[in-house]
Formats: sequence, structure tokens, C-alpha cells
Amino acid sequence: MDPVVNDEFYMSLALDMAQRALGQTGINPVVGCVIVKNGALVGLGTHLQRGGGHAEVHAVTMAGSNAEGSTVYVTLEPCSHYGKTPPCCELLIGANVKRVVVACEDPNPQVAGKGIERLRQSGIDVEVGVLRDRAVRQNEMFAKYITTGQPFVTIKTASTLDGKIASETGDSKWISNAEARLQVHALRHRHQAIMVGIGTVEADDPSLTTRHDRVDGLQPIRIIVDSKLRLSPEAKMFREGNAQVIVLTTEQADPARTKLLCDAGATVLSLGSGPRVDMKAAMTELGRMEIGSILVEGGGTLNGSLLQARLVDRIILYIAPKLIGGKNAPGSFSLEGIRHMSEAITLGSVMIEQIGDNVSISGIPVWPSS
Amino acid sequence: MDPVVNDEFYMSLALDMAQRALGQTGINPVVGCVIVKNGALVGLGTHLQRGGGHAEVHAVTMAGSNAEGSTVYVTLEPCSHYGKTPPCCELLIGANVKRVVVACEDPNPQVAGKGIERLRQSGIDVEVGVLRDRAVRQNEMFAKYITTGQPFVTIKTASTLDGKIASETGDSKWISNAEARLQVHALRHRHQAIMVGIGTVEADDPSLTTRHDRVDGLQPIRIIVDSKLRLSPEAKMFREGNAQVIVLTTEQADPARTKLLCDAGATVLSLGSGPRVDMKAAMTELGRMEIGSILVEGGGTLNGSLLQARLVDRIILYIAPKLIGGKNAPGSFSLEGIRHMSEAITLGSVMIEQIGDNVSISGIPVWPSS
Repeated sequence: MDPVVNDEFYMSLALDMAQRALGQTGINPVVGCVIVKNGALVGLGTHLQRGGGHAEVHAVTMAGSNAEGSTVYVTLEPCSHYGKTPPCCELLIGANVKRVVVACEDPNPQVAGKGIERLRQSGIDVEVGVLRDRAVRQNEMFAKYITTGQPFVTIKTASTLDGKIASETGDSKWISNAEARLQVHALRHRHQAIMVGIGTVEADDPSLTTRHDRVDGLQPIRIIVDSKLRLSPEAKMFREGNAQVIVLTTEQADPARTKLLCDAGATVLSLGSGPRVDMKAAMTELGRMEIGSILVEGGGTLNGSLLQARLVDRIILYIAPKLIGGKNAPGSFSLEGIRHMSEAITLGSVMIEQIGDNVSISGIPVWPSS
Repeated sequence: MDPVVNDEFYMSLALDMAQRALGQTGINPVVGCVIVKNGALVGLGTHLQRGGGHAEVHAVTMAGSNAEGSTVYVTLEPCSHYGKTPPCCELLIGANVKRVVVACEDPNPQVAGKGIERLRQSGIDVEVGVLRDRAVRQNEMFAKYITTGQPFVTIKTASTLDGKIASETGDSKWISNAEARLQVHALRHRHQAIMVGIGTVEADDPSLTTRHDRVDGLQPIRIIVDSKLRLSPEAKMFREGNAQVIVLTTEQADPARTKLLCDAGATVLSLGSGPRVDMKAAMTELGRMEIGSILVEGGGTLNGSLLQARLVDRIILYIAPKLIGGKNAPGSFSLEGIRHMSEAITLGSVMIEQIGDNVSISGIPVWPSS
């Protein structure tokens, strides 16, 4: 079916353009901009990388003199402050655009409605909220980081129908089907860093790289949670992927091991007095290092400890139609038991997607109020 | 959108009619029949209960003289043998119908293509296979029973994202959402019997009745697996639901307990020398009692033992977006562990349905070939 031509028709293109840039803008948001005049598309722009031109700048440049009297569709409120580039509001006002359609407000406290206000003050007709839900979801990582200074944490896990992530003997190749595994590489592509526990590295020696079908991928920073510094400088991730390796450990770690890993190219962060890594401190420190999003591909222990520390912003669970049994086969989440169903951690804003005979369930964790 | 008027248009109505009768025909199949002549619907019929008229009989009666020269849509191959009623093939031949469209062949070895052959021999134009997949699925229970004499066994279970069916303390109210729980009552409605373990009865004292929203439901036979005959004659199921209670036990059971339960109205079957109930023998005996379908709503132990004995024909798993943790919280399936993923029990013909924020995954178990 052909779509209806309306505000959503153009905004959905702007959102599609922004979506393709997810993962390449660092701690910046993704933004798409479409300019339309007299029924014709006259300008397109996307924010491509931190420090690069904003979406509006690219689109206005492309539109040239057609910007005058045009309608501008932009997925995020135009900025009103002087950052790495001059404010886009002033650009649009100077270009004499007639109408601006905004999908959602900028969560950045420095903007937060001031851009919309500035445009309106200058006499531009501004409409806000077209395809808002999609736009908010698209920049959920940016929103977390800009408001808290901490990275957005996504837990991804893949289990069988009986909640297992490997057999009793540790075999996990493969639980998910090929298409679901490709989706995981898309998740890696969209996050600035991947986090795993040392147990996963010891079991699988993964390269933790992004591998798509036929196209290149962005290679996220690899973060290893390793309280005893057992990580080998011979691990595959030091040879493959060409991306930074950060090791999170404690003050109990052996300085000789620290030196060994630093020599291999790792950054070692000592977080808390041990015996376990202080994950809250870790998130603050990783945020300070301008890591705005982390995909956790850990085992049940790491997943459980992050959840119990309430450091998780999204959970994506892939389920495969298999049963592997075994009382000691590892599960997706090692959590202390609860007494009543009302104490369960639930997921909000649940999205369910069928992927062949697998299913993905994604949502935002909601902890019990106790 | 309005549907296209074609063979599928009429066959889908016949299938819908049959579907509504699932659960009320006992060990008989469900069958729907639609008769069309000169572009107009002239007859409808559904097989309503065992011993009652076949779908074709009702439809031909309704069509009257319009049956002559008509097209007959029937979800299952018309019977060619003398059973409780005369063969439908002869009825259609006698009514001078022109064309017969059949969704699928009758799996009954007494028919199995002979009905189609008989119609063709008499000069009727017969087409087979319109909406076949749906028709085969609709009568999967009948097909199992008519070919093996054993009941079709469906395991239904509801778990959290971490594969738990209750908290460590046994709380399970509720894991699934309200709509998923109503679907379970539809499953009860469609099966001749419900099976649970004595553990479930002791924990919840369930009435095991079918409760729909506003309409009455069929009340299945209740089957309790109870090797030590711990079932109380005071259990709610003896007071509610007004349907038969069958208790499966072993030769080790105390005759005094047997008498107590028989006095309360139960049928007690002694299966094997113990200590556990011989479930293979149970299925043979229940089949002999003309129970053609069983919905298992047991815990992990019963589910696991039925799966390991390869006595399960379909698994329906409801998953709720919750995490409850607890190493000792019970899971959906107690199975011995495996070494390699290749030894997993997988599901074939998987169907995935989103039910609000819950999801159901349904499929046919496929055991490893070892």
C-alpha cells in the first residue's frame, strides 16, 4: 500500500535516516532532518558524528534558497545553545523557514524546550510530537547519558524455553537461530561498548567484534569485568577487532597482572576494595570516559548483579524453542529468590518480535517498590 | 479488507464452524461443511457430538433440493465406511452434487483416501488440499488417537523470563496476564481431560474447571498423577466442576486409600509396580477409556517425566516479562542435563503469538535422534 502523504510521511523518513546512524554518534543523539517546499523534498540531513554538522545544517545546505518558506521536519528539537556548533534555531530563523515539525523535545537540560520556544518567538509555526514515541525510543541512550552522565545499559541474553543459556557442560553453540544472532551484531553496532564477565572470556575466548552480513560494522569498546585480573594478554580480543579493551577490577588486583594487561593494550580500572567490582562506581567512571551505552552480553552472574544494583535500562531476551534441562545448567539471571510474585522485577513497554522460530522480548526493567 | 470469493473463502467458514466444536466431539474429529450453488450459500453443517449426524448430513438436509449440482466444501474427507452413521460419500453421490472440495484426507485408516476415491469413481469432481495445513492442525488430536489408540498430550506451562513457574516459596499467582489465563481455559475447553500431579493439588487445591468470560465451558475429566495416593477426598475438585476424577497410582498404593477415593467418586487406576506411575501404561489405559486428548498442567516434574518418556505431542508455553530468581524456585521442565546443544529437545512447527505483554510459543516436540 502506498502511504498517505502527511507530516508522518516525511517524519518517518527523517527517523529512518537517524536510525541508520545509531552507533556512530558516540554520546551525541542521532538526528534526521527533512525539508519540504511546495510539495517537494528539497533537503535531507543527518547528524553523522560527534563534532560534525547537525542534521539541520546538512539539510539547509542542501536546500539552499529553497529553505525559505519551507517546512522542516526534525526528529529532535533544534538546539538553542552554543555547543561544538552554533545553535540550529538561529540557522532555521536566518533561513526564513515557515514551519518546523519536531518529533520530540531534547532531553538535554541545556535545551529542553528552549529551542522550540526560540523558534516560536521568532514567528515560526512549530508543531511538536509527530511520531514522538519512535523518536524518544531512538534516542533513549542519549537521554540517559545526557541527564545522568552514566551509560545506558542494555542486557542481551539468549535462552532456551527452560531459561538456560548453556548446557551443564557449558555448550551454548547455538541456542539462537542465525537471524537472531545477526540481530545481536546489530545491537553491538549500536552500542559504544560491549561488557562481558571474565567467565565468558575464559569459556569462549570471544573476539567481541561486530560481524554483519556483507557490510562493515562499528567495533565497540570491549569491557571485561574481572575482579581477580585473570584475563590473559593472549585473549583473542587483543588481536581482533582493533577496538579498545577496558578491564574492570578491584584494588585487590595484583599490580604485576595490571602491568601485563596494560602492556597488551588494555585500560585497567580499579573500582572499589573488592572482592567484587563496584559496578555503580564503574558506571560513573565509564560515563566520565564518555561511554554512553553498553551492551552486556554476560552470563547469569553479571546480569543478576547489574539487575540487583538497578543499573539496567533495557533487557532484550532471545528465546529459542529448545529444552536442555539440567539442574546445574546456567540460567540467564542469577538473582536472589523472592517470596511473592509482587516482588518480581517486571518489564515495562514490552516489545515482542518473532524471528523465525525464535522470539525476542524487549522491555525496560521495573523494580518492585520495596 | 473484503476477502476474495474463492474456494478458500468458503472453506475457511467450514473450518471456523468446525473449530467452534473442538472439545465437544470426544474422540471424533471436528468437521464443518458448507454447500454453495449458483453463487449462493445453500447449506451449512457441523459435526456436533459423537454419535450425532456428520457435518455433511446436516448441510445436505439444510440444502434440500439445492444440493443437486452444488459444490460441497468439507474440512475432512467424507467417510466411506459404515460407522455409527452411513457413509457420507453415498449421501453426496445420492444428492447428485457436482463438485466436492476437501481440506484434508481422513487419517482414520478405515478411510484414508477411500472416500475421495469413491466420490471420484462416481463422476464427482473432487479437489483436495484447500487450506490443508489449518485442517490438519485442527484435527491433530483426532489423528493421534485414531492412528495409535493413545490420547494426544498437550503440555501447557507458564513461566517467567528466567524459566520459573513459581517463587522459591511457591507463589505463582499470577505469572501470566489475564488474557493468557483466559486462553488456558480455552485449552481446557478443547481437551477431554486435564492432568496434574498431586503436588499441584496439594499446593493449590485447584478445581480444574473451565471458566470463560460470560459463556459456559466444557468441563474436562480431571486426572491426578498420585503414586502414593495422597489425594484428599476433601479436595475441591470433588465438589466443583461435576466432571469425572481419575487417579493414576501404582500397585504400591494402600487399598484403604483407594477405597476412600472411590467412595468420594474417583476412578483409581493402578499402573505398574511403582514407585512412580508407569505413564506409558497410563496413556494406553486412558486411550482404552476413550480419552483422546489430555492437557497437562503439571509442574516441572510431571512435564519432565512425560517429555523424557516421549509421550508429549504439543507444548504450549506462556512467557511473562518478569524475573523472579531463586536457585530453588521451580522451573517448567525437570529434565536431566545434556552435554551438547545437539541433544536438546527442540520444537517443530513453532507458532508464536503475542498476548499483550505476554507471549505464547507453541510447537511439536522433536527428540534428538540418539
